[in-house]
Amino acid sequence: MKRIVVALGGNALGNTPEEQQLRVHKAVQPIADLLAQGNQVIIAHGNGPQVGMINLAFETASLADSKQPGMPFPECGAMSQGYIGYHLQNALQAELRKQGLPQKVATLITQVEVDRDDPAFQNPTKPIGTFYSQEQADILANTKNYIMKEDANRGYRRVVASPKPTGIVEIDVIRSLVDANHVVICVGGGGIPVIQVGQHHEGVPAVIDKDFASAKLAELLQADMLVILTAVNKVKINFNRPNQQDLDDVSIKELKTYLDKGHFLKGSMLPKVEAAIAFVENNPQGVAIIASLEEAALAVKGKSGTLVHA
Amino acid sequence: MKRIVVALGGNALGNTPEEQQLRVHKAVQPIADLLAQGNQVIIAHGNGPQVGMINLAFETASLADSKQPGMPFPECGAMSQGYIGYHLQNALQAELRKQGLPQKVATLITQVEVDRDDPAFQNPTKPIGTFYSQEQADILANTKNYIMKEDANRGYRRVVASPKPTGIVEIDVIRSLVDANHVVICVGGGGIPVIQVGQHHEGVPAVIDKDFASAKLAELLQADMLVILTAVNKVKINFNRPNQQDLDDVSIKELKTYLDKGHFLKGSMLPKVEAAIAFVENNPQGVAIIASLEEAALAVKGKSGTLVHA
Repeated sequence: MKRIVVALGGNALGNTPEEQQLRVHKAVQPIADLLAQGNQVIIAHGNGPQVGMINLAFETASLADSKQPGMPFPECGAMSQGYIGYHLQNALQAELRKQGLPQKVATLITQVEVDRDDPAFQNPTKPIGTFYSQEQADILANTKNYIMKEDANRGYRRVVASPKPTGIVEIDVIRSLVDANHVVICVGGGGIPVIQVGQHHEGVPAVIDKDFASAKLAELLQADMLVILTAVNKVKINFNRPNQQDLDDVSIKELKTYLDKGHFLKGSMLPKVEAAIAFVENNPQGVAIIASLEEAALAVKGKSGTLVHA
Repeated sequence: MKRIVVALGGNALGNTPEEQQLRVHKAVQPIADLLAQGNQVIIAHGNGPQVGMINLAFETASLADSKQPGMPFPECGAMSQGYIGYHLQNALQAELRKQGLPQKVATLITQVEVDRDDPAFQNPTKPIGTFYSQEQADILANTKNYIMKEDANRGYRRVVASPKPTGIVEIDVIRSLVDANHVVICVGGGGIPVIQVGQHHEGVPAVIDKDFASAKLAELLQADMLVILTAVNKVKINFNRPNQQDLDDVSIKELKTYLDKGHFLKGSMLPKVEAAIAFVENNPQGVAIIASLEEAALAVKGKSGTLVHA
C-alpha cells in the first residue's frame, strides 16, 4: 500500500457544468484503479477554467445589475472547490461502488497559506477574468484596487500574484481522513490563498499553482508518491526539436540541469517539473511521477510517465 | 462531553460576501463556547440568501452573455457550501486559536439523499431565483423544463420541490472527523439533493429544508443534542395573541398537539418544530433545543431556549 497524492489538471474537467459532469467520469477511472490496487489516494486539482467561469459570472451579473454583489477572488475559489469537488466525489464514489470497493470520498474546503512577503505579490502576473477597455480598467484600478495589465493587445485584464504555498490550514483534518482510509479531495485550485494576520487567516486575491500546492500536500502527508497528471505521457527534453527525447527515469539533480538549460515551458511543463523536484527534495524517500491521465495507473506501476527520484 | 449538532440559519449570514464575512464572527461565538465547554460540535447551516445570490448571478450572466453557461441548481448549492463553509471555518478556527482551543475545523461538501417518489416532487412549491414575465417564464418552461409559478402578482418564478432527506451520502466521513475530535461543517443548505440511480447519485433541482437535514444528521450521528438556532429565544404558542406563551420544556407528545392545532408558522417555526420532533422520535435519548443564536450557549445549559424531549 502506497500513499499517493494525485494532482489533476483543471483543464481536464472542461468549461461548463455539462462538460465537467461528463469528463469527471473519465478522470476518476485511473484514481479508482489506484484504489483498487490497495493504495491510499489524496486528490488535488486545478480550477483555472472553473474559477474563471465563476468570477466572470459575478462580474457580468454585477455589471448588468448594480444590485448584485461582486465576489472577491478567494470566495470564487471556495465556490470552485465546492463545484468541482461535488462532481468529482460523486463520480468517484459511483465508480468505487460499481467496483465493490469500500472507500468513501470526501471534498474538504481547503485554505492554503502563503507568505505576505512572497516576492510574487510585488509583481502580479496571473491574469484572471475578462477583458476590459482602458477606461474600464482605470475605473477598476481606482475603485477596487485591482492591478490591470494590457494583455497582448486584446484589452486589459486583472492580474493577481501567484505566491508559493507555505502550509495547508486543514492539514490535520486531511490526515485524519486519510488515516481513516477515506479518499480526500482537497487543495482545489491550489487552495484558497490566505495569509496569517494575528490569530486569523485572511483570504488574499492570488492564484496558488496547483502543482506546488499538491507538492506541499504530498510533503506534509509524507506521501510515497506525488502523481502529477497532464496531457502527455512523459516529460520531454528538446521539446519540438528533431532531438526531442522522453525522460523515463530521472534524478532531481539531472532534472535540475535540464531545467536550468530552459528545456521546460513556463506555464506548462515547468511548474510540474519544479513541483516534482520540490516534493522529492523535501521527502527524499518519495518519488514524483509526471504522466498522462490515461496512463496514470500504468505510470504508478513504472510502465509509463516520467519518474523523478532523489 | 456531549455530541451536539448545531443548525445555523442562512439568513443569519447576510446577503453579500462583505456582510457574511462580518456576521460569521458573531455566529461562531456560541459555537466556540460549546467547544470550550468540552462538547463535540457538528455545524449544519442554511443557504437561502447565498444560493439565491449564486443562482441569480449565473442567470443574469447567461442572459447578458449567451456564451456564459447556466448553472444547474444542485451545482449552485455545492458552490454555496464552499462559499459559506470557507467563511465559517475561517472565523471559527480564528476564534478557537484565540481561545487556545485545540480543535480543527473542516467543511465537507455534502450530498443528501432524497426519495425520487417523495410526494414533494409532484407539487414543487419552493421559489428560487428571480422574477420573470409570463413570456420569459413560458420560454424557460419549454426550453429548460423549469416549473414556473406566478408569485403574488410580482411575476413568475421557478419553483422546485422540497423533499425530505432520507440519508447523507458522506455520513461515514463526517463520523470519522467527529471521532477524531474535529469540528465539521456539513449538509450546508440542507445538502446537495441527490437521488439514487443504480450505483450512482444524481443531483436534482430541489431544496432540502436545512432543519430536516440537521435532524437527519443528528439522528445518524446519534447526537445527544440538536440545537436549532433562530431569531427568537424560545418557541411560542398563541404567537402574536394576548395569550402568547413561551415554551420552556416540552415533550414531543405535547408539542405535537400544539403543532396539530396550528400554533406554528409555515416556513418559519413549523419546520424547526417538526425537525425537533423528528430527531427526538428517532433518538429518544437525545433532546432538541430551539433557541436564539445569542443565547445558544445558555440554552445548552438549560437557561434559555425551548427544550424538546421524549
